[in-house]
Amino acid sequence: MLGTCLDNVRKTTPLVHNITNYVTVNDVANILLACGASPIMSDEPEDVEDITSICGGLNINIGTLHRTSIDGMYRAGAKAASLGHKILLDPVGAGASHLRTSTAVGLMEKIPFTVIRGNISEIKTLALGSGTTKGVDADVADKVTDENLDSAVAFAKNFAKDHNCVVAITGAIDLVADADTCYVIRNGRAEMGSITGTGCQLSGMMTAYLVANPDEPLKAAAAAVCAMGLAGEIGWSHMKPEDGNSTYRNRIIDAIYHMDGETLEKGAKYEVR
Amino acid sequence: MLGTCLDNVRKTTPLVHNITNYVTVNDVANILLACGASPIMSDEPEDVEDITSICGGLNINIGTLHRTSIDGMYRAGAKAASLGHKILLDPVGAGASHLRTSTAVGLMEKIPFTVIRGNISEIKTLALGSGTTKGVDADVADKVTDENLDSAVAFAKNFAKDHNCVVAITGAIDLVADADTCYVIRNGRAEMGSITGTGCQLSGMMTAYLVANPDEPLKAAAAAVCAMGLAGEIGWSHMKPEDGNSTYRNRIIDAIYHMDGETLEKGAKYEVR
Amino acid sequence: MLGTCLDNVRKTTPLVHNITNYVTVNDVANILLACGASPIMSDEPEDVEDITSICGGLNINIGTLHRTSIDGMYRAGAKAASLGHKILLDPVGAGASHLRTSTAVGLMEKIPFTVIRGNISEIKTLALGSGTTKGVDADVADKVTDENLDSAVAFAKNFAKDHNCVVAITGAIDLVADADTCYVIRNGRAEMGSITGTGCQLSGMMTAYLVANPDEPLKAAAAAVCAMGLAGEIGWSHMKPEDGNSTYRNRIIDAIYHMDGETLEKGAKYEVR
Repeated sequence: MLGTCLDNVRKTTPLVHNITNYVTVNDVANILLACGASPIMSDEPEDVEDITSICGGLNINIGTLHRTSIDGMYRAGAKAASLGHKILLDPVGAGASHLRTSTAVGLMEKIPFTVIRGNISEIKTLALGSGTTKGVDADVADKVTDENLDSAVAFAKNFAKDHNCVVAITGAIDLVADADTCYVIRNGRAEMGSITGTGCQLSGMMTAYLVANPDEPLKAAAAAVCAMGLAGEIGWSHMKPEDGNSTYRNRIIDAIYHMDGETLEKGAKYEVR
Repeated sequence: MLGTCLDNVRKTTPLVHNITNYVTVNDVANILLACGASPIMSDEPEDVEDITSICGGLNINIGTLHRTSIDGMYRAGAKAASLGHKILLDPVGAGASHLRTSTAVGLMEKIPFTVIRGNISEIKTLALGSGTTKGVDADVADKVTDENLDSAVAFAKNFAKDHNCVVAITGAIDLVADADTCYVIRNGRAEMGSITGTGCQLSGMMTAYLVANPDEPLKAAAAAVCAMGLAGEIGWSHMKPEDGNSTYRNRIIDAIYHMDGETLEKGAKYEVR
Repeated sequence: MLGTCLDNVRKTTPLVHNITNYVTVNDVANILLACGASPIMSDEPEDVEDITSICGGLNINIGTLHRTSIDGMYRAGAKAASLGHKILLDPVGAGASHLRTSTAVGLMEKIPFTVIRGNISEIKTLALGSGTTKGVDADVADKVTDENLDSAVAFAKNFAKDHNCVVAITGAIDLVADADTCYVIRNGRAEMGSITGTGCQLSGMMTAYLVANPDEPLKAAAAAVCAMGLAGEIGWSHMKPEDGNSTYRNRIIDAIYHMDGETLEKGAKYEVR
């Protein structure tokens, strides 16, 4: 029951350490608060070990890398791993530059990520060790569709198996898989793509779900994906004709703020393969 | 009359230099504009002395420290002090890491802060030279309540006396004290805690109040605290059932935008001890 | 027809590389998405050449300079120039500090900017090699008015000629000029000045317009200025009595989200001199 995963966040108020990009960091903080978690941000290498030690999970997002924040990511990741914390990687723009690709690949070699969450283009880059993405959006030619679903599911499971983690590939159809099982999720709306950072927000919130549901990372990750998509649907239902992407951003976070386990349970649209 | 403090901001449009965290910086800028002030942000050591020189006040917030921004804080603080500017310290997360605690304590040794504003956990950390905070939220066990109010007021006055400044300890009950007098303020709503950065916003706005009311730092700080809490009340009154923390953030800044001295005067809920 | 410039953005979804300040970066990203473009942010020197190579345009904004981001600006600018990309400079706070002025002037010497967009105080600083601005707002004494319009238009054309670029000087009356022609634009509302970053947003969006209309930089820049001002007018028409500057920020981006070429064509208020 995915709704339980949400309830567990509200019951336990997990503290999440975020090393994330400066573009969408405010929205990441607000959605963590909205879902019942508590955010703290720190990327300075001298600060990250102390901060991650008081948290239950670590969210690493490479959307705006700096030399010093990369150092912070490695240090925080090592510390979080030594403490058995849940750790998530959001490889924003992997494939778009050598620094992003090499940083994501390098982090994967050193840090035992619980979940890696990205679009299909980013995940393919990590799988192939190379690739090209158009900015932070998935390559249109490579999106997950009903036509290529079987092969996409197989790809996700293989990726999860190879990297001993859960992988969440988000897009029009979302895939959340471990080596054996794949949630195929159909919540959400295309208009969410016109807001910056819905992926970053999902990664932050997903980390909270992982912390609050320590024994079920696959289910927790799937629940977070369903919750984000459902919030996109609920938020859209409150949009007025003059509202656009900026108001929609607020409406989605607001919907997370009001969502309870029962709403998520009823609204989640997925099949398990 | 606290309302006069607000009116003085609108009359004089104080320019406030902010060295603040990248999580909530946009909201800090917008609330400064909302209250009638003008913000400028700069943390690069080579830039801060020039910038602070053209301002009337300096707001230092340690929410996301970097080695270079720490250098910028010391340089800006020294310059602002030499010019007799109002200077505020927001010790976000003091107690959560050695770097944060040592930076806050170190800044206090070098810079004559007009006001130090934080939650009870952060202020206790500064008072004790050690301590533990859960992220950026006050330790629940240590919150100011009606039961411990007398001792909390005494603590605040002692802190203010020891550090020769005004201290603002914000929470469900807010305390704003100098060595002799303490405002006990009961504006605000608990739901404000589900928005990231209401404290950071208050610190920015409070700096503007200090600049606009140069001879009355205690009253100015108290007025800013009342204004923020009152904005939380007014903003909440405009919330619709579907609105959550993201919309609430906007509503609070909007309420500051419309607030005048008379509204603040009528709405402020405080006693002086 | 300025409306065509907007339509071309929606048809081509230009990818814009932004090296911009951390205060308003989220709004810049959202307005780029709202207008039909796609944003990517990167300022790390090791990352910027790869990122700018996959984009069509580069938006450089000096609002919160760091030593490393300045290096990133030079590297990205050189790469973008070598690729024939459109490049825009937003000299935020030029005149307010030596670092800002020298960086803006230094960038202008090395990088062939397509457009330089700022307020009159910033542009005068660049023209004179010195000057003073009050934070990020135009010096009131030096604003463009109907009384000084002739000399302001002449100044703009001369600046454009001297620097071989289009210049956009924004304020109550906006001027967009090349060496021969100046658009005098009267869209917008004074209340836009109470939102942080409307200028930064305009610069981001303008870069997208430049990329989508490669042969007409003057018209593209003028169209972006009209679109921003018109969005300010449309957004204001949806404001309720309790709404303030934070909601207005959302309403403006929302208006850009809904704007089409026909709306811009009808709503643009300008004369060509």
